[in-house]
Amino acid sequence: MTEKKFINKREDVVRELLEGYALAYPDKVQLAGNSLVVRAQPKASGKVGIVTLGGSGHEPGLSGFVGTGMLDVSVPGEIFAAPGPPRCLEAIKTADRGAGVLFVVLNHAGDMLSANVTMDLLKKENVKVKKLVTQEDISSGPREKPEERRGLVGFLPVYKIAGAAAEQGMSLEQVHDAADRFAKNMRTLAVAVKTATHPSTGDAIFTLPDDEMEVGMGQHGEAGTGRMKMKTADETAEIMLAQLLADLEAKAGDELLVILNGAGATTLMELFIVFRRVSQILKDKKIKIARSLVGEYITTQEQAGFQMFIARMDPELIRLWDAPCDTPYFVMR
Amino acid sequence: MTEKKFINKREDVVRELLEGYALAYPDKVQLAGNSLVVRAQPKASGKVGIVTLGGSGHEPGLSGFVGTGMLDVSVPGEIFAAPGPPRCLEAIKTADRGAGVLFVVLNHAGDMLSANVTMDLLKKENVKVKKLVTQEDISSGPREKPEERRGLVGFLPVYKIAGAAAEQGMSLEQVHDAADRFAKNMRTLAVAVKTATHPSTGDAIFTLPDDEMEVGMGQHGEAGTGRMKMKTADETAEIMLAQLLADLEAKAGDELLVILNGAGATTLMELFIVFRRVSQILKDKKIKIARSLVGEYITTQEQAGFQMFIARMDPELIRLWDAPCDTPYFVMR
Repeated sequence: MTEKKFINKREDVVRELLEGYALAYPDKVQLAGNSLVVRAQPKASGKVGIVTLGGSGHEPGLSGFVGTGMLDVSVPGEIFAAPGPPRCLEAIKTADRGAGVLFVVLNHAGDMLSANVTMDLLKKENVKVKKLVTQEDISSGPREKPEERRGLVGFLPVYKIAGAAAEQGMSLEQVHDAADRFAKNMRTLAVAVKTATHPSTGDAIFTLPDDEMEVGMGQHGEAGTGRMKMKTADETAEIMLAQLLADLEAKAGDELLVILNGAGATTLMELFIVFRRVSQILKDKKIKIARSLVGEYITTQEQAGFQMFIARMDPELIRLWDAPCDTPYFVMR
Repeated sequence: MTEKKFINKREDVVRELLEGYALAYPDKVQLAGNSLVVRAQPKASGKVGIVTLGGSGHEPGLSGFVGTGMLDVSVPGEIFAAPGPPRCLEAIKTADRGAGVLFVVLNHAGDMLSANVTMDLLKKENVKVKKLVTQEDISSGPREKPEERRGLVGFLPVYKIAGAAAEQGMSLEQVHDAADRFAKNMRTLAVAVKTATHPSTGDAIFTLPDDEMEVGMGQHGEAGTGRMKMKTADETAEIMLAQLLADLEAKAGDELLVILNGAGATTLMELFIVFRRVSQILKDKKIKIARSLVGEYITTQEQAGFQMFIARMDPELIRLWDAPCDTPYFVMR
């Protein structure tokens, strides 16, 4: 695959994309300090801060969700690479308004390493911080070993729920507990059908035969659990949803949040067709879709494929999910 | 290019995508009558209705923008094909709440034919309707012949401005005049770098050499005005913006709405880098970016490329643009 991307120098991609992002949404976000993405209008004080970190190249994730009701500060790394601990420390100190900070970390080796060093550095600082790791990819580890499970699109509702709790004045412990209860009840499974190219090298991220798809592939082409012949939309929905429901032990009467997240080149058209089958299956099982989203929240360049996400909701989580938020790439009224 | 799409039977694509869309956003939209997309909670009466029509395969355009503050009814056609006049007639009668209907038509041959026949049929009906044609693609015709200019992403702010005017209780004439004043001051230019496949046939929509891009390509691979070697993001921004500014006769002191619309596979990362250069150029020319958006509002499957849109704003248009709206794929608080 030839890389045909609108970039300038490869080494400038991250700096330029962040500058462009801040210029496009000046009323909502700005760059501060050492390339941190912060709210254009930060809350004055008393609110728990929500901070995250993660590699670039996955836009709109993660910095697209900085704003009222979601993140206070995002620390973007280089392409597919975690930012270092000094910038994470700066982000947490920036986000602290006296009520402490929830530090949301997607479970990937580089991000975890940075986050853990940051937590060590914080011991010398007068900031109350709780770390919350998202680890919901059922293909990358068994349920008994959550530390092996990667963080995928589940970060989005975690930001939303933590952000709403913080905005409503909850304490750091309450914000953490609501987000943690949600995170423990969420599951994601991905499928990939076409590779993307790495914008800093032009190389394909992975290879896949022309008639095959891979279930369980990670956010950067990490190997999955099921390489198989290309399936129809309905078959794909059935294969993926069955694994998710089994892992969550979902049963009749449960209320779920369902998200289908496009990887980049997969169309909304396709995701709607998959959602249709997901909806039918859940209806047959008397499991309710409490809320749902279909869109691109975290991408891997022009990769084709998608992530299927489910989470068990309760009335408080639904209330937090429904709370208003206002960020460049997620707005709720 | 092998087609690897999550669909079932090719002939069911449109029906299934519409069903899935309505199932995913049940609080906002539903299907009514002969596959019309309508608001889940229509306004009771007295509001001007906003109706549009257009082919499917461009999601989230056009039906993704049905909801408070934007469209009342969308008439989706088959893939890349206009819906017939009977369904357009049904849509307009559905949307009429006694205050008349603004019928927004993107300038493409099939859509115009359907719309014109619909307008004829309406002469026998007791519904007040004004048709507004969007025709802002500067590559497909000279400025003196707007009838040759295609409708591209400009439909989005036209729905927004007309929808806000309608929601605020303006008369059909006032709604039309605000939207028309806006539409006459908008310009779009597209660039394509990689083709898409037609979901109903699996065929590539167009061909383009591996090292070339085409400026001015239409929404369905219609030939553009400038096939050239692939350029950097900055060069592409300069080439496209110069043509747009010249055509609009933009000058220092003007206030613009700027939209970059991804075609499908082009990343937000790239669009931000392009936006950065657009912002620099406009700053140098002392032209202000009053409002801006970067995202995917109308796509052509997994095509790579984007549309660059500018429109001259005035205080009333900015006020209408800023009014709240709540649709599945565009929300403003």
